Amino acid sequence: MKKRSKESYIPVMDDVITMAEDLEIPTLGKCQVKSPLYSIMEWGGVSPKFVRDHEKVLFDPTSYQGHHRQKNKKALAVELAGPRSQIYFNPSKTKCAIVTCGGLCPGINDVIRAIVMAMFYRYGVRTILGVPYGYQGFIPEYGHPIRELRPQDVAHIHREGGNILGSSRGEQDPKRIVDFLVQNEIQILFVIGGDGTLRGALKITKEIERRNLKISIIGVPKTIDDDILYIDQSFGFETAFSEAVRSIISAHNEAHGVFNGVGLVKLMGRYSGFIACYAALAMNDVNFVLIPEVPFELYGEHGFLEVLRRRLAARKHAVIVVAEGAGQDLMGEEELGRDASGNLRLKDVGLFLREKILTYFKGKKVDINVKYIDPSYIIRSVPASPQDSVFCLRLAEYAVHAAMSGRTQMVVGKRNGFYVHLPMSLVATGRKRVNPDGFLWFSVLNATGQPVSFFNPPISKSNLKRIKRK
Amino acid sequence: MKKRSKESYIPVMDDVITMAEDLEIPTLGKCQVKSPLYSIMEWGGVSPKFVRDHEKVLFDPTSYQGHHRQKNKKALAVELAGPRSQIYFNPSKTKCAIVTCGGLCPGINDVIRAIVMAMFYRYGVRTILGVPYGYQGFIPEYGHPIRELRPQDVAHIHREGGNILGSSRGEQDPKRIVDFLVQNEIQILFVIGGDGTLRGALKITKEIERRNLKISIIGVPKTIDDDILYIDQSFGFETAFSEAVRSIISAHNEAHGVFNGVGLVKLMGRYSGFIACYAALAMNDVNFVLIPEVPFELYGEHGFLEVLRRRLAARKHAVIVVAEGAGQDLMGEEELGRDASGNLRLKDVGLFLREKILTYFKGKKVDINVKYIDPSYIIRSVPASPQDSVFCLRLAEYAVHAAMSGRTQMVVGKRNGFYVHLPMSLVATGRKRVNPDGFLWFSVLNATGQPVSFFNPPISKSNLKRIKRK
Amino acid sequence: MKKRSKESYIPVMDDVITMAEDLEIPTLGKCQVKSPLYSIMEWGGVSPKFVRDHEKVLFDPTSYQGHHRQKNKKALAVELAGPRSQIYFNPSKTKCAIVTCGGLCPGINDVIRAIVMAMFYRYGVRTILGVPYGYQGFIPEYGHPIRELRPQDVAHIHREGGNILGSSRGEQDPKRIVDFLVQNEIQILFVIGGDGTLRGALKITKEIERRNLKISIIGVPKTIDDDILYIDQSFGFETAFSEAVRSIISAHNEAHGVFNGVGLVKLMGRYSGFIACYAALAMNDVNFVLIPEVPFELYGEHGFLEVLRRRLAARKHAVIVVAEGAGQDLMGEEELGRDASGNLRLKDVGLFLREKILTYFKGKKVDINVKYIDPSYIIRSVPASPQDSVFCLRLAEYAVHAAMSGRTQMVVGKRNGFYVHLPMSLVATGRKRVNPDGFLWFSVLNATGQPVSFFNPPISKSNLKRIKRK
Amino acid sequence: MKKRSKESYIPVMDDVITMAEDLEIPTLGKCQVKSPLYSIMEWGGVSPKFVRDHEKVLFDPTSYQGHHRQKNKKALAVELAGPRSQIYFNPSKTKCAIVTCGGLCPGINDVIRAIVMAMFYRYGVRTILGVPYGYQGFIPEYGHPIRELRPQDVAHIHREGGNILGSSRGEQDPKRIVDFLVQNEIQILFVIGGDGTLRGALKITKEIERRNLKISIIGVPKTIDDDILYIDQSFGFETAFSEAVRSIISAHNEAHGVFNGVGLVKLMGRYSGFIACYAALAMNDVNFVLIPEVPFELYGEHGFLEVLRRRLAARKHAVIVVAEGAGQDLMGEEELGRDASGNLRLKDVGLFLREKILTYFKGKKVDINVKYIDPSYIIRSVPASPQDSVFCLRLAEYAVHAAMSGRTQMVVGKRNGFYVHLPMSLVATGRKRVNPDGFLWFSVLNATGQPVSFFNPPISKSNLKRIKRK
Repeated sequence: MKKRSKESYIPVMDDVITMAEDLEIPTLGKCQVKSPLYSIMEWGGVSPKFVRDHEKVLFDPTSYQGHHRQKNKKALAVELAGPRSQIYFNPSKTKCAIVTCGGLCPGINDVIRAIVMAMFYRYGVRTILGVPYGYQGFIPEYGHPIRELRPQDVAHIHREGGNILGSSRGEQDPKRIVDFLVQNEIQILFVIGGDGTLRGALKITKEIERRNLKISIIGVPKTIDDDILYIDQSFGFETAFSEAVRSIISAHNEAHGVFNGVGLVKLMGRYSGFIACYAALAMNDVNFVLIPEVPFELYGEHGFLEVLRRRLAARKHAVIVVAEGAGQDLMGEEELGRDASGNLRLKDVGLFLREKILTYFKGKKVDINVKYIDPSYIIRSVPASPQDSVFCLRLAEYAVHAAMSGRTQMVVGKRNGFYVHLPMSLVATGRKRVNPDGFLWFSVLNATGQPVSFFNPPISKSNLKRIKRK
Repeated sequence: MKKRSKESYIPVMDDVITMAEDLEIPTLGKCQVKSPLYSIMEWGGVSPKFVRDHEKVLFDPTSYQGHHRQKNKKALAVELAGPRSQIYFNPSKTKCAIVTCGGLCPGINDVIRAIVMAMFYRYGVRTILGVPYGYQGFIPEYGHPIRELRPQDVAHIHREGGNILGSSRGEQDPKRIVDFLVQNEIQILFVIGGDGTLRGALKITKEIERRNLKISIIGVPKTIDDDILYIDQSFGFETAFSEAVRSIISAHNEAHGVFNGVGLVKLMGRYSGFIACYAALAMNDVNFVLIPEVPFELYGEHGFLEVLRRRLAARKHAVIVVAEGAGQDLMGEEELGRDASGNLRLKDVGLFLREKILTYFKGKKVDINVKYIDPSYIIRSVPASPQDSVFCLRLAEYAVHAAMSGRTQMVVGKRNGFYVHLPMSLVATGRKRVNPDGFLWFSVLNATGQPVSFFNPPISKSNLKRIKRK
Repeated sequence: MKKRSKESYIPVMDDVITMAEDLEIPTLGKCQVKSPLYSIMEWGGVSPKFVRDHEKVLFDPTSYQGHHRQKNKKALAVELAGPRSQIYFNPSKTKCAIVTCGGLCPGINDVIRAIVMAMFYRYGVRTILGVPYGYQGFIPEYGHPIRELRPQDVAHIHREGGNILGSSRGEQDPKRIVDFLVQNEIQILFVIGGDGTLRGALKITKEIERRNLKISIIGVPKTIDDDILYIDQSFGFETAFSEAVRSIISAHNEAHGVFNGVGLVKLMGRYSGFIACYAALAMNDVNFVLIPEVPFELYGEHGFLEVLRRRLAARKHAVIVVAEGAGQDLMGEEELGRDASGNLRLKDVGLFLREKILTYFKGKKVDINVKYIDPSYIIRSVPASPQDSVFCLRLAEYAVHAAMSGRTQMVVGKRNGFYVHLPMSLVATGRKRVNPDGFLWFSVLNATGQPVSFFNPPISKSNLKRIKRK
Repeated sequence: MKKRSKESYIPVMDDVITMAEDLEIPTLGKCQVKSPLYSIMEWGGVSPKFVRDHEKVLFDPTSYQGHHRQKNKKALAVELAGPRSQIYFNPSKTKCAIVTCGGLCPGINDVIRAIVMAMFYRYGVRTILGVPYGYQGFIPEYGHPIRELRPQDVAHIHREGGNILGSSRGEQDPKRIVDFLVQNEIQILFVIGGDGTLRGALKITKEIERRNLKISIIGVPKTIDDDILYIDQSFGFETAFSEAVRSIISAHNEAHGVFNGVGLVKLMGRYSGFIACYAALAMNDVNFVLIPEVPFELYGEHGFLEVLRRRLAARKHAVIVVAEGAGQDLMGEEELGRDASGNLRLKDVGLFLREKILTYFKGKKVDINVKYIDPSYIIRSVPASPQDSVFCLRLAEYAVHAAMSGRTQMVVGKRNGFYVHLPMSLVATGRKRVNPDGFLWFSVLNATGQPVSFFNPPISKSNLKRIKRK
């Protein structure tokens, strides 16, 4: 069993409190501009319900016996997102930019579109730049042309999947990015990306502070794996696992259509198996779910391969869903390095498993038929589902309200059903992961009927914990 | 402006506190049976994480300045749902039944299936009866045959829309229903239905109390309109508005395909316009959304018809989404009575609007082309989306855990992201409705560009409020 | 039994021979321009396979005992469609226009797009006008602005349903249309429309001949009902009946979900019930299909309502699919006149049937639940299926090749699997209809299990024929 | 350029005439049983339109100048499919069986279902056996259990993809298969499979003749590649390429979403590139289509890689669709042998191309991003589209009619739009392939804009032909 890297560490609540201090969101200065939202609503004589800065929601509303858990500790609360009656930036003089980093995820175009629409129509900001191909777009040497985004340019982009701006992986020099912002007089930068991207964005904010500039950096967390800390389901996740269901149905049909058929589906999930879990729950034809959070052994009486053999002997077919980050400790010691985003290069667990299964059954002289499906690129590129579309729209609106109010170093997100502001430093500290002792995994075990452990001997809970914490 | 009926009254938090007292869930007795979930997890040596009875979540976690709003008042909290280590019913002796009432809603089959699976495989309950055609199924005179539901009977029912049990509207004599439960030795009844159905279920619990019986009644709230009080989105709602999006696209294409084309889509929403709002946000081709919560006038300079005329003159096409309960006050005084569920029979606002539009434009000598789409039955009957499927599965599991623990007179639901137990009497007191001053409606106004008010003269916020409260 | 109008008369082969003489396609003159397709293919040194004018395909390839049926009669043959090596129009001087008439049909945008692409890129024609809102677009008084269509304007229009040009019903003065063509120097007009539209186009060609102009009129037959004579399935038909299947599934689920549920679906099909037949075959949950070609009685022991009653008594639910033109003779004598296209206004057989069913069962004191679904506008407005997209693309290419070769007064179509040229006058003579003695209807009877006749007494084949011919 | 194997040889019409003699279908004997279809239609007094044995359709209806091409040669004609008034088998004593071989293809379940339904309900045959896992199912040693198929077993199987019988590749000893048929008193065997399977079926018919048995073998050609000779589109093909379109959209979105993105999609097509061609025509985002019928070179100024480089330099993204059998001659000399079906094992051209592209651009120091999608198993396992469902239904009905009439050694198929009987020996002689000089490939070249040839130097047509014939 290999030692887990620091990356996979899940902070618990007490750590967070220490880390995040009081979840305050930095602001660039006093809000002295009357929100244009007043005038928009004027005709009907109705003023919108602005949110006041002291409106907050408890970070953790669970409690014991009716009062809050930690009696002597001030409960943590986070700001509610929403439009403020007074804003920081003067819309007529404000320029903003949008950049998208990392892999495709359903809904990116929805977010871009809604930022443009809200900036343009709600606040009257007329210059909105689209930075092409991620952080590379800020660096002149790459020669990627900056686009201006007007409402008519983005009106229908949400109907197609993909990302009209294009993306890239990896960071660029924060100094040069700030140079770009200064030269182009950008006061607000929306960063759509995952935890690595947000760590990059934090470095940009550091450089902005160093130069004492009044530039707001607002993140919209993007992660198809749904592994952003402290927020409910991230945008695109629902679309992703819904689309994954199609591959599971295919795997089931393929496995059923031959003798001793094995349908093997590799789904996204570098560190967090949420897509695998939800897809398996949505379509109960899956017999085994393997995720990064739950280690397993291949060999031995209780190992995965022998359990699979028994399943085939009994039922003549099996469907396996494996998250791409599962079983990395089984694939040998050599390092593959990191990609441009700084993500560890993963060995391909799908091809690895296929080969191990074929070899094992050949050794047992049992004819089997493995059908391997890797739908990742198909899933990433579909348009957002209607629910994800609404979610992206509202998330983008809240990002715009936050930006115009002069907030910075924060992300917008939904937490326990409320749209809130969260410190960028908080959500970038780690990754949300499936809790092997929680109800989600419990439901998966029930739905698949797979054993709790593929270890030899089957290990006790305390042992499993120790393995997981190593 | 007609006086609103009591039905449309929205209780505010303070009322709830009074009504619900302390949100306690009644139980049938002490839990003295060890949960079979222990043994299920035995092989791996892992025990599932049982929920303890004192684990709760705040009913309202919003706060001001870090402490809870009402300083001198004990904060309300609700029980977390989940399996208990000790349960009330002895599985080997327990019989249960499922009944479904009211209209079709995506996901009903998912809920039925998951109740059967959890009861059978998790707890070992072997007798699970399906009561056919709603509350009618309990009354022998109707002659509807009771079915036994085994895992193999329900294994694939979630792939198709519809409701394998069948449903009916309206109540039946609670005494006779309890007679049925007693005769068939049913100790647990799962009731899947809307607010009317839950009020019917409360009467059954009253009769059970009167006879001093140990029968648990657990509700799974079903409402395609998402109008159940105090719970997040209800099951099937996402599928419903997602499917509604298809009709909006069609209406848009039809309206665009002719000169002065008007696409008019009537969507579900007797008292609450959530489907209309979400569908319009998901596909931004809608120019007007009319919902029951926001009254409007047809005539006059600011009335709906004249605003529509100006829109057509400018753009040559328009798309209108109207919730079925909108504009009821405009359709004359005669009463249509109530249906078997006790719902007021609504006049058909879609046909009404079509006619008013045609007449108005004829009067103005303007040629138009109205394409009217009523997709209600198509929407209600589709299978649940993958996300709704997972939601139904987990909701049903929590209902089963609650029932086995001897709780009664409650519903399971998600509130602020947590699965909780809510008193049946609480959620049956009224209906959740779109807040015309809230952010959802604000987003809809922004997305459509429609005016805040169709009154003459455009009224001030305070007037609008007065109208709404009348 | 009412007398059938002349419109519903189906010409048989011998009539056609007389009517169409020898299926010759008129041409505007000698082809003296070398096709630009030579140069396009130059790089590879490959010349495309041009079609020679004498390449034909038999109009009717069925035969008896290996030789052709009518020994002493020269067999009819039609021209194969395809690019000609010599063309009539000089591309650099050619202007063309596209007009679309009648109702929406999946694939219209595909056809428009492919005409523009083939004209522009294959032949180098640079001026392609889009005539808005059907024949109205030619008449200046309507004030509809003509659009120029360039490849970038149409590149993605096929992904959405609808019709970017807009349409209208009804004819306009052929003289004024020809005036428009002359003033705008249009040499080729593509007309996308149904049989009425094609009859209008014939009048335009008459006026062109009268003035001795060299203008080509090429039709692309559009009919969602698939009722164009002498061609295989028309574009959009497959998409339409595939989409209709969704409504049938819904009707089935709705009917199943209540006691004595009746799902009633009205589908398109004014004179021809092909959509109803194919949709019912594709999803075998339909118990009754009613089409215009097969008359029926409502009352009496063998009448439709009593047969429905017996079905419900036995099975507790039923699904009925009715084509909009079915049962028109049952709905009373008063005339409803014709719409702008010259189509007889049909009474709404869906609402009629619903009412008759409700009344009949009320009279029998049987509780039933009728769920009526009218999906017409939803079906018409969806994008073409992939197969229809390919079909539209190729059909449009063949229309362009035909036009450039100077042909006129013709339509392109697929016949017995071959793309061919057909005289416009031939296909505009009547309507293709479901043959009640043919294998399609035989399959429908088998799939539904419905009786052959709803007459009292059930009539013999010869009587039925007499009824049909009346 | 490697020599093509005999397998890829396409017989032309003159060969066929010699090979097939006169396309006669063998029969087992005289038809002396009155068809039960008479009585089924009795109630209405309507007799179905039976097909007479001399009703035929011309094999090739194309002609020159109105008379048939080959004046002195008797034109070839094939039998029309359909029910016969007199049949060979006595339904009450008939047993039949169904076997499915080869890979999954959408619609298999539809065909199985419709054979059972037509046999049972139309003809009253009560014993219909399902042979599991292909030809293996006949051989007792495999131990696969034979299933009896009743209407209720197959009523809903068409709604899901896959194959309820299961399949296997490869032949089994014809003697043992006939032993099985004799022991189980099977008089009719329906074989659903591709050209290899049909060659296997021919051997079974030889053995049946040798033993002088009265057993009918009827083929239903199944090939997802649409490569069966002499028939129009095969069942499942439309569904397959429609589903492939989704992968192309994904590849386009992925390619667009990064700088120098290359979307590479491998589609089915061992010897025939129809799926690649149709999918590319249906969704015009494809820049290069590579199929087995059109050889290409990788290197040199006109080679594929350099053309790709120029495309990327100009447009920054590219989408490539490659059929699995394309470019096999480029992948080295070593043989991979044959699979159990006797198909040559193909090297994976998708992985090969990906690697060649990456290496080439690395050599040119150009950063690119290749996204490789292999959707084969997803495509094969989806349910049939509605149109394919209708097609399967009717094909199966015609197979049943043919079988009951005592025909054997034949397949049912659609040819030029007519359902016909074709000699099994005829369709099993080779494979239908895309004609590089035909209109389909011409449309693909136009839609993609790709060069006609990737050879250095670009070769003349006559050279290309020579290459192709080698």
